[in-house]
Amino acid sequence: MAGGIGSRFWPVSRLSHPKQFIDILGTGKTLIQQTYERFTRTVPKENIFIVTNDIYTGLVKEQLPELNEAQILAEPIMRNTAPCIAYGCYKISQINPNACVIIAPSDHLILDTEGFVHAINLSLQTAASNDCLITLGIKPSRPDTGYGYIQFNSVILDKDFHKVKSFTEKPNIDLAKTFIQSGEFLWNAGIFVWSVKNIIKAFKQHLPEINDVFKEGENVYNTAGEQEFIQKAYYQCTNISIDYGIMEKADNVYVLPSEFGWSDLGTWASVYDLIDKDYVGNAVLPSERVIMYDSSNCMVNVPKGKVVILQGLHDFIVVENNNTLLICPRSEEQNVKQVVADVKQRFGQEFI
Amino acid sequence: MAGGIGSRFWPVSRLSHPKQFIDILGTGKTLIQQTYERFTRTVPKENIFIVTNDIYTGLVKEQLPELNEAQILAEPIMRNTAPCIAYGCYKISQINPNACVIIAPSDHLILDTEGFVHAINLSLQTAASNDCLITLGIKPSRPDTGYGYIQFNSVILDKDFHKVKSFTEKPNIDLAKTFIQSGEFLWNAGIFVWSVKNIIKAFKQHLPEINDVFKEGENVYNTAGEQEFIQKAYYQCTNISIDYGIMEKADNVYVLPSEFGWSDLGTWASVYDLIDKDYVGNAVLPSERVIMYDSSNCMVNVPKGKVVILQGLHDFIVVENNNTLLICPRSEEQNVKQVVADVKQRFGQEFI
Repeated sequence: MAGGIGSRFWPVSRLSHPKQFIDILGTGKTLIQQTYERFTRTVPKENIFIVTNDIYTGLVKEQLPELNEAQILAEPIMRNTAPCIAYGCYKISQINPNACVIIAPSDHLILDTEGFVHAINLSLQTAASNDCLITLGIKPSRPDTGYGYIQFNSVILDKDFHKVKSFTEKPNIDLAKTFIQSGEFLWNAGIFVWSVKNIIKAFKQHLPEINDVFKEGENVYNTAGEQEFIQKAYYQCTNISIDYGIMEKADNVYVLPSEFGWSDLGTWASVYDLIDKDYVGNAVLPSERVIMYDSSNCMVNVPKGKVVILQGLHDFIVVENNNTLLICPRSEEQNVKQVVADVKQRFGQEFI
Repeated sequence: MAGGIGSRFWPVSRLSHPKQFIDILGTGKTLIQQTYERFTRTVPKENIFIVTNDIYTGLVKEQLPELNEAQILAEPIMRNTAPCIAYGCYKISQINPNACVIIAPSDHLILDTEGFVHAINLSLQTAASNDCLITLGIKPSRPDTGYGYIQFNSVILDKDFHKVKSFTEKPNIDLAKTFIQSGEFLWNAGIFVWSVKNIIKAFKQHLPEINDVFKEGENVYNTAGEQEFIQKAYYQCTNISIDYGIMEKADNVYVLPSEFGWSDLGTWASVYDLIDKDYVGNAVLPSERVIMYDSSNCMVNVPKGKVVILQGLHDFIVVENNNTLLICPRSEEQNVKQVVADVKQRFGQEFI
């Protein structure tokens, strides 16, 4: 899934160039390139499909030149994850009705590829032989209020999979602490494994209108008519997430407690936590031409080659991209969404 | 005089593009263009000569296209104001030995052109008919520690001119306050009026070595050999200011107390004082695409069209030019000279 717009990383991410297409940690590879490489470790390259917005298909081709046209699924409008997954699963079902699929965001960080591949392979085995929908749950290391949580109960499937009891969107800090202490909660990573048969069954039951839209295309997927069909189909869909539409309602959802160095890289704070810092907590990427005087716990992210001199800044973010400079306290970065809205209103769509 | 390098305005001023060639207040004209226009109000254009460094003659021609080649005097190396003035005065003396000249920096601000022209015309009359060296003194409005001060006594020449008693370089704040209270002190604007006869006499007496160097060229000024002669002459000169070399020593120095909205624009603080600010003290030039949240008393100076978002900054300067960004407290701007030295050492000469 590569259709998001990631405005929290503005101005590094832009409407025309969102987070998944950026090398946000300065590793030399963009997030979608890292995600693609990770999946080549567990599935044949020709079985990897990218669902993205129409306007990003050029970026996908540019960054993943190995893909052929048929592997890029273009959405005409943003309709959240449920239509995206319905489209992908119906299309794959038409190729192989017995397929099992892995659904994953393209803009997350996973440090331990081995651990990830192991969890995926376990999940594929279980999904292939059981009537279940599997989600990967990350063992939480702190009461993070930016993540969704999955509560599991004591019902076990195939040794490692726990029956899911409830989903909770971003909790407040007290609730998050309670979750961690209980030992019954995992972070929702938004990575799913299931057979196309089972997910189509779930769509029929929980999101019948969306199911009807995509079922109608059964004979056009993987033909010349697919793109035209999809253009119309998306406009008939409501905007709804797979979590809200299916996962929270289905009674055959299981979670695999996992640990593979995962982060959704949802905020600059999460990036700051992950990158190298000097002894006063300053982190700089990717420019090497930064001098700081009397400054600490700052993150500087500016284009390569740019010279930056900071003095007297503590706990600030200094981010520049595309002729746009953002200087704000690290604690205020949730405000970026508001900033983007203000910039759009005052200067126009082309600046966001 | 247009040979300075103005590193206090780095990174807006650069070694290759110093302050006099910049429109530092966003008026639409660079400082040297403003200075040139001011002088066209009181002397014929063909009588205006620019002394600058060799490497800036291109900038002078570009910004003052009306000048012909002979009006641009190129210094091969920086040797402060005394050699610069000796060169200019010897050259003009060869054209007209009875000339009176006005010497002025090209990078100062003067708001009241009428008042300036009036002071110049008064000074020219007195300089033409008396054995004196005239300097313009600015009536001080505050105990500024960034300026030099001129003390005068009660000896009067031509009604308006006071005999100079002493010069004092940048005083400390207590001394500056005493100066202001005494009523005997004026700011040294570095603007001089005298006959070439009188200044050459003063060079003979107080800076005989520099005088010898430039006297030797009497027959080559305004000929094809001038440039070659000057190339050699400058290397024989010591680095010395006209204030230190002559004004502080001569006993025929008079000052005209003046008021014409003068500033030497020596620091960002002086620019900040002069430009429009919003009701929380934020000043922005020349970009119009700046949004500030919870910020006050900041000055933003970035290239036109650049989008800047500031949050939580108080009393800061945010300056960008030529792919170089400086963020520092307004109170720390004296530090810019050190910053420039550090940048040169760490990244190289091409960055300053």
